[in-house]
Amino acid sequence: MDARETLLALQAGQIDLETAVDRLRGYADLGHSRVDLQRADRNGAAEVIYGAGKTARQIIDIAGSLRTNGNAVLATRVDPETARAVCGEFSDAIHHETARLVQIGTANRDKPATRIGVLCAGTSDLPVAEEAALTAEFFGNDVERVRDAGVAGLHRLLGSLEVIRNCRVLVVVAGMEGALPSVVGGLVKAPVIAVPTSVGYGASFGGLAALLGMLNSCASGVSVVNIDNGFGAGFLANRINRL
Amino acid sequence: MDARETLLALQAGQIDLETAVDRLRGYADLGHSRVDLQRADRNGAAEVIYGAGKTARQIIDIAGSLRTNGNAVLATRVDPETARAVCGEFSDAIHHETARLVQIGTANRDKPATRIGVLCAGTSDLPVAEEAALTAEFFGNDVERVRDAGVAGLHRLLGSLEVIRNCRVLVVVAGMEGALPSVVGGLVKAPVIAVPTSVGYGASFGGLAALLGMLNSCASGVSVVNIDNGFGAGFLANRINRL
Amino acid sequence: MDARETLLALQAGQIDLETAVDRLRGYADLGHSRVDLQRADRNGAAEVIYGAGKTARQIIDIAGSLRTNGNAVLATRVDPETARAVCGEFSDAIHHETARLVQIGTANRDKPATRIGVLCAGTSDLPVAEEAALTAEFFGNDVERVRDAGVAGLHRLLGSLEVIRNCRVLVVVAGMEGALPSVVGGLVKAPVIAVPTSVGYGASFGGLAALLGMLNSCASGVSVVNIDNGFGAGFLANRINRL
Amino acid sequence: MDARETLLALQAGQIDLETAVDRLRGYADLGHSRVDLQRADRNGAAEVIYGAGKTARQIIDIAGSLRTNGNAVLATRVDPETARAVCGEFSDAIHHETARLVQIGTANRDKPATRIGVLCAGTSDLPVAEEAALTAEFFGNDVERVRDAGVAGLHRLLGSLEVIRNCRVLVVVAGMEGALPSVVGGLVKAPVIAVPTSVGYGASFGGLAALLGMLNSCASGVSVVNIDNGFGAGFLANRINRL
Amino acid sequence: MDARETLLALQAGQIDLETAVDRLRGYADLGHSRVDLQRADRNGAAEVIYGAGKTARQIIDIAGSLRTNGNAVLATRVDPETARAVCGEFSDAIHHETARLVQIGTANRDKPATRIGVLCAGTSDLPVAEEAALTAEFFGNDVERVRDAGVAGLHRLLGSLEVIRNCRVLVVVAGMEGALPSVVGGLVKAPVIAVPTSVGYGASFGGLAALLGMLNSCASGVSVVNIDNGFGAGFLANRINRL
Amino acid sequence: MDARETLLALQAGQIDLETAVDRLRGYADLGHSRVDLQRADRNGAAEVIYGAGKTARQIIDIAGSLRTNGNAVLATRVDPETARAVCGEFSDAIHHETARLVQIGTANRDKPATRIGVLCAGTSDLPVAEEAALTAEFFGNDVERVRDAGVAGLHRLLGSLEVIRNCRVLVVVAGMEGALPSVVGGLVKAPVIAVPTSVGYGASFGGLAALLGMLNSCASGVSVVNIDNGFGAGFLANRINRL
Amino acid sequence: MDARETLLALQAGQIDLETAVDRLRGYADLGHSRVDLQRADRNGAAEVIYGAGKTARQIIDIAGSLRTNGNAVLATRVDPETARAVCGEFSDAIHHETARLVQIGTANRDKPATRIGVLCAGTSDLPVAEEAALTAEFFGNDVERVRDAGVAGLHRLLGSLEVIRNCRVLVVVAGMEGALPSVVGGLVKAPVIAVPTSVGYGASFGGLAALLGMLNSCASGVSVVNIDNGFGAGFLANRINRL
Amino acid sequence: MDARETLLALQAGQIDLETAVDRLRGYADLGHSRVDLQRADRNGAAEVIYGAGKTARQIIDIAGSLRTNGNAVLATRVDPETARAVCGEFSDAIHHETARLVQIGTANRDKPATRIGVLCAGTSDLPVAEEAALTAEFFGNDVERVRDAGVAGLHRLLGSLEVIRNCRVLVVVAGMEGALPSVVGGLVKAPVIAVPTSVGYGASFGGLAALLGMLNSCASGVSVVNIDNGFGAGFLANRINRL
Repeated sequence: MDARETLLALQAGQIDLETAVDRLRGYADLGHSRVDLQRADRNGAAEVIYGAGKTARQIIDIAGSLRTNGNAVLATRVDPETARAVCGEFSDAIHHETARLVQIGTANRDKPATRIGVLCAGTSDLPVAEEAALTAEFFGNDVERVRDAGVAGLHRLLGSLEVIRNCRVLVVVAGMEGALPSVVGGLVKAPVIAVPTSVGYGASFGGLAALLGMLNSCASGVSVVNIDNGFGAGFLANRINRL
Repeated sequence: MDARETLLALQAGQIDLETAVDRLRGYADLGHSRVDLQRADRNGAAEVIYGAGKTARQIIDIAGSLRTNGNAVLATRVDPETARAVCGEFSDAIHHETARLVQIGTANRDKPATRIGVLCAGTSDLPVAEEAALTAEFFGNDVERVRDAGVAGLHRLLGSLEVIRNCRVLVVVAGMEGALPSVVGGLVKAPVIAVPTSVGYGASFGGLAALLGMLNSCASGVSVVNIDNGFGAGFLANRINRL
Repeated sequence: MDARETLLALQAGQIDLETAVDRLRGYADLGHSRVDLQRADRNGAAEVIYGAGKTARQIIDIAGSLRTNGNAVLATRVDPETARAVCGEFSDAIHHETARLVQIGTANRDKPATRIGVLCAGTSDLPVAEEAALTAEFFGNDVERVRDAGVAGLHRLLGSLEVIRNCRVLVVVAGMEGALPSVVGGLVKAPVIAVPTSVGYGASFGGLAALLGMLNSCASGVSVVNIDNGFGAGFLANRINRL
Repeated sequence: MDARETLLALQAGQIDLETAVDRLRGYADLGHSRVDLQRADRNGAAEVIYGAGKTARQIIDIAGSLRTNGNAVLATRVDPETARAVCGEFSDAIHHETARLVQIGTANRDKPATRIGVLCAGTSDLPVAEEAALTAEFFGNDVERVRDAGVAGLHRLLGSLEVIRNCRVLVVVAGMEGALPSVVGGLVKAPVIAVPTSVGYGASFGGLAALLGMLNSCASGVSVVNIDNGFGAGFLANRINRL
Repeated sequence: MDARETLLALQAGQIDLETAVDRLRGYADLGHSRVDLQRADRNGAAEVIYGAGKTARQIIDIAGSLRTNGNAVLATRVDPETARAVCGEFSDAIHHETARLVQIGTANRDKPATRIGVLCAGTSDLPVAEEAALTAEFFGNDVERVRDAGVAGLHRLLGSLEVIRNCRVLVVVAGMEGALPSVVGGLVKAPVIAVPTSVGYGASFGGLAALLGMLNSCASGVSVVNIDNGFGAGFLANRINRL
Repeated sequence: MDARETLLALQAGQIDLETAVDRLRGYADLGHSRVDLQRADRNGAAEVIYGAGKTARQIIDIAGSLRTNGNAVLATRVDPETARAVCGEFSDAIHHETARLVQIGTANRDKPATRIGVLCAGTSDLPVAEEAALTAEFFGNDVERVRDAGVAGLHRLLGSLEVIRNCRVLVVVAGMEGALPSVVGGLVKAPVIAVPTSVGYGASFGGLAALLGMLNSCASGVSVVNIDNGFGAGFLANRINRL
Repeated sequence: MDARETLLALQAGQIDLETAVDRLRGYADLGHSRVDLQRADRNGAAEVIYGAGKTARQIIDIAGSLRTNGNAVLATRVDPETARAVCGEFSDAIHHETARLVQIGTANRDKPATRIGVLCAGTSDLPVAEEAALTAEFFGNDVERVRDAGVAGLHRLLGSLEVIRNCRVLVVVAGMEGALPSVVGGLVKAPVIAVPTSVGYGASFGGLAALLGMLNSCASGVSVVNIDNGFGAGFLANRINRL
Repeated sequence: MDARETLLALQAGQIDLETAVDRLRGYADLGHSRVDLQRADRNGAAEVIYGAGKTARQIIDIAGSLRTNGNAVLATRVDPETARAVCGEFSDAIHHETARLVQIGTANRDKPATRIGVLCAGTSDLPVAEEAALTAEFFGNDVERVRDAGVAGLHRLLGSLEVIRNCRVLVVVAGMEGALPSVVGGLVKAPVIAVPTSVGYGASFGGLAALLGMLNSCASGVSVVNIDNGFGAGFLANRINRL
């Protein structure tokens, strides 16, 4: 949104003075937060709210500011109680409980012709996989989900190989030893975004085992995001799918 | 279970079309899970349900699918509430509370002539040791239990030496410094499967001390599974005992 | 070797008094080392010399004592210079340079009918795999070697599946993310001994990544030995193969 | 390369029987290595040789096999002495000393219209950055290099912002605290592949600090490869650039 | 407070004998605690109570002793219940809930002419930033707060550059990758006190990522305090601001 | 307690057959536990119950067995609910809540003429220090307690120097950086047993900082026990004090 | 150096066109490096060369560029061979071998009236302490050195207390347990910059023990720089001393 | 050495003025080092020189100063070249090469009636064990050495049980899993000083495994010193043996 548009909107009485000032300097200052209003222009997507460590009040304020400035809203890591408070404030808010996401509207964008694949190794990895898939959908992508395709039973993965090979970019979610991205990486031409999860116990050390495994993948074409960071993977998959 | 058997069962009306399809491709797709129906053929034992991070609904679905396809069911890391829900669904389900296992039926197999020994160093290691012993029994083995035989009082261990030496494979469970597998390993000819536990405090770092100790054992013939992984040790012991 | 045999040998002048004393108390005291003369009786295999941190003189002394007492000798982690010194002392010593082993004779035992498989994920893992294979052979086993069968090109592994399935026990050696044992574990009925290697860079942290990966394997029937511990895996494989 | 082509080549006497067999089963077995001959078909790029832990002889054998089967060759982590040996064997081999690469030919592919940007934070990060850039060039891409653009002097980065924004995908290399990918990620729409380096001392712990920093990036659209893994970043950048 | 003053106060009946003894030896012995009565003389500020692991009773006793000896009181890491108990005892106590501080009075000191800046990278870092800011204010400083100025949107930081450059010393609070101190350090002449927070998930490892990032800062003039240690930063900022 | 004594007691009807058997083989087998009845003879002190991970029932059984065999009882790490259950069973049981100890009787031994000093650095370290002091008293020692003598106010420590120098052995308890043992070690001739505590936050990593600090002490004559292991320190102090 | 000055210098023929361009955009682009020419204006001190990982050629180029633009030069972590090469190029270069510094000229600045104290705990910490002291002197400060004042012999520290208390800011260097900053912090009013060193063995883990100790200091007013980062401490001390 | 003695010696011309000053203030200031001249009075033993990181010149200076003031000299961690230099300077210096010690004279003290036992688990642990034993002998103790008594062959340990039980204090040295102190601790009444060594590979992580194992010992009466710190153990053993 460039300066001219902002000034025209002000002149036309569509926005008030405070909003115009915010837009010109590029952020709205809410006291507790500075909402980045240039992020869509700079990064191709508006700010997403990291919900952990924020009060319901703070999330509602930020969401309100994003809405006022014409953006859809996605908040991650929202606990159930906070989600209820946010949904009470915005009638069109949707709470994805498993994925811990709250979404208000969808990013109003054209749908890419190609698809994103989201694979997960085990049923216990579903919350993280759903966070990735829903994030990709929030940004307007079609998503193929392949669930519970861990390497201990390869035919489950190979049974979906055609579906997988038809995706332009793949998000591969796995806990425990995190071997799935290596195996998938050896079978496809698409970029693979590996997401380690904290599923496992003992020497998984909260996902460290899967993280190190993925960073050391012997398959090329694999890169890694933070442990349990389904959002980050879905966001990056959208970015690559739109190239 | 080969294709011919499956087709005959379909023809005979013993299974429905969906089940036949599942068996031919090797897994049942429950949406949230892909139940591996070839695992018994491939690995000598049907899939075991890792209960952590799964809802009661998901566990019940998987258990149902395994049962439908003629398998006994073992679920690990099941919390009490989930266990109650599962037991409410299957009248022959048994909940081993200390070991956090739920079992439906027993793997219908011939009993090996040789025995598996399950030793633990301290009383606090009992839950993990029981997980190992009950798993071995689920797979049809006779198990010798030697409890509280830690190295600080060697005569307690030596007092059971005959029993121990009569086992074909040994599971040795210990927390804290995890020294028991080294001492046992120096006294026997059987393979020793060492299981570190998270028992201890401070610099045990959740079982890391015992894990590293066991990996560095000066006794030969010792291998290690994950921290608190009684199931894995019991499973492997069964596999070795059946050689 | 029981007491009666020792005394008869003394009487017959086959051994000297010192040797008889050593055998009766169960170890030869060399000053720097106490060579365990009961280990074969207790553990089914004589003591193996851990070469690291020992001088050539010490290794030669221990080897001599083992020989005197009728044992074949295996020394691990022997650097080239020390190996030369040891081989200079024993005319029938063999130096396996890649595997860093020195061997004098072979353990005089019957050959099991079944075979041990030693797989490795990459060419760079060969030294550790050879340490395992040569150790298994030292103890009289037939060994199948499958090299460079990493998961990034599954057909290389599947191309040897028959060979692998015919082994009674498998040693699986891998560095980097250490995923191969999980994939192999999902395909076989044999016990899998996983050996993490320090092959890799950066976040492999000297083999930690592979170690954690293997400990967290989603496949059952897998246990783990220390990083780069080919000897330990070969030793255990022999023990299991002889059950 | 499909079966028909292979058979025609055999019939025409262009390849010998051994080569035909290798191609049909998908790999050449060199004893020490199994060269994956289907990788280009499966992954869009032939196998790259990981040089660390391999002898010159092994690298030469693998390179020869790749050449025989019509592939260009890239070997990473080649020390100077080994590089000399390889270059002595192949007259068209090129040794990039700083990047520790040896290259024989270039992957014979069409050049993408878009460019890859390779940024590095400090001069000491150059070897890793060059590994990434030369890898991308080996696969036929045009590369923009922006060097020594660390966050302690932001104008150095901003001075190249137009160049950076014109790239389709960015490789961002940094040691120490590894902050550059976050700052770049906040300024662009392209996917950012972050490469932590082991540059730094003390609490950098061999690149761990940079690695953790990048995994925790507050900017979206960033994913991470292994410490010092310039090759992996360049490979992935090529894959994304060709979408 | 020197000996003469203490003796005069005793003579004048302003303090009792016990208090005089305490002052002369430099601490009050409360049984559970030895309150340091010379700290203000030695360190320029009286003892501050570290609230974690102390009972309400203990905190009240120490606070009482500090008050008796003429000091203002600051207690950190006070949980809500304990805070209520302390505030019930001292009518002028103030509980800063977000910052987990309890304050009784303010250190009665002259106000420095220069200001301390407290910046934080994200809204979730506010509790730690407030702990720093309120501590600095407790010691009589004027504080500039700049909130939510993370590096993913640099203009938010640059928009406050004048304010920042007018501060004599800066406290910079950040979680996740902890990049903000490096960027700020590259823009200013003031000493930067970096405070890593435990905000983040997965590979943040409770603030370790931010801590390592800050210790490895490529910008000079940056030093670091413990994770989440807002108090320590505010205390040090006061000390520097008073030079 | 030697065999003769046991047999005489049996003959005299003072003990039953089961007890006599237990004593002769050296342990009582309670099913869940093997109570070591020779420990006092071997180690100079009867078994102490490690309460963590044990049920109230198990603790009561073990305590009963120890009592039956003439020993006083000490149980560590007992949570309040379990302590209540145990105290309900034994009328002379005492619960030390802060130290989490339950004690039944006192080890019936002569009191050494020399004293044990227990120092702690801060008030928050008191629970661990009390565990050490009460353990030493349980074993019949006189204990000097010096509390809150941390290095940030050296005069508090120096004020008790005479008391400290009169002790024969010192237990020094500290969290955070754990510097107190080094300073004390530089001032005394007695052996110093250092106990790191988990007091602290952030980069204390649950006591790791204090543990490493103490292990690296520049003062000689210092050795270290596990984090928060007040019991271990008190036990060892008793052993040294009785030399 | 502002734009006007640059243009006047160009007009006067004092600098060439290339230099003028460099100054206007704020950095000189040497291909391998971008020398920050605005750093003195922004940060109060010109760029310092981090020598590790740079070739002699690169260091010479950067030094030349800094000189051309009127700056004194300091290069850190320069190995002896590289230092010789640099000194061969610049006749006024000085090599401080112990501190691994090369210095060309001194930053031409007024000398502050107050002094910086540099303390070290042991003789083995001298190289790091000298790096700090020489850096502070390079920036024009008077430095007091107090060496070998570790806490195991407090009187060595107390013997220099007057000297220490007369410094405006203190750099405290220590390895092993790193306790010195806590003790010093408890005795002074000046800010303390703690520098952990890698001196120590075993569980010092390359300085980690000292680093954690210092971060957890119980004394207030202490902040920490990277392990062995004498330069960073000296730089920050200069910045604080000039406030 | 009290002030009166020093003054008398000065008066008698036995020492010069400089030495008198040194003694009165308690340390000799050599510029690079402050030699603690009160340590014997305070700690019962003069300063010992930590040789690592010191030049030969520095060690010679410190040794000279200790000699001048009537002390025997012990220097640890002295590399061969430095040792030669030191021995060249002092004709009565002895170099213990395995233990890396240099000794000049012996601490002139009465010999205790009781003995110190030094046990080691393997031959590779000998250098550390010798450092402990020679240190104890330097301080005038009789030492029993029991070598190569690791837990994999318990009879080797039990064969020396009488010798071990006759020692007043035990130093137990072990690498790998470090289990020996737990087993010894369960057999004796004496205090056990456990010394982890860096012997081992892979997941020994430089002795971390042994260190953690010993800290978590299930046997009471065990405390731990730093990895490979034979000196510290020998020093402490002397202190305890002299109680």
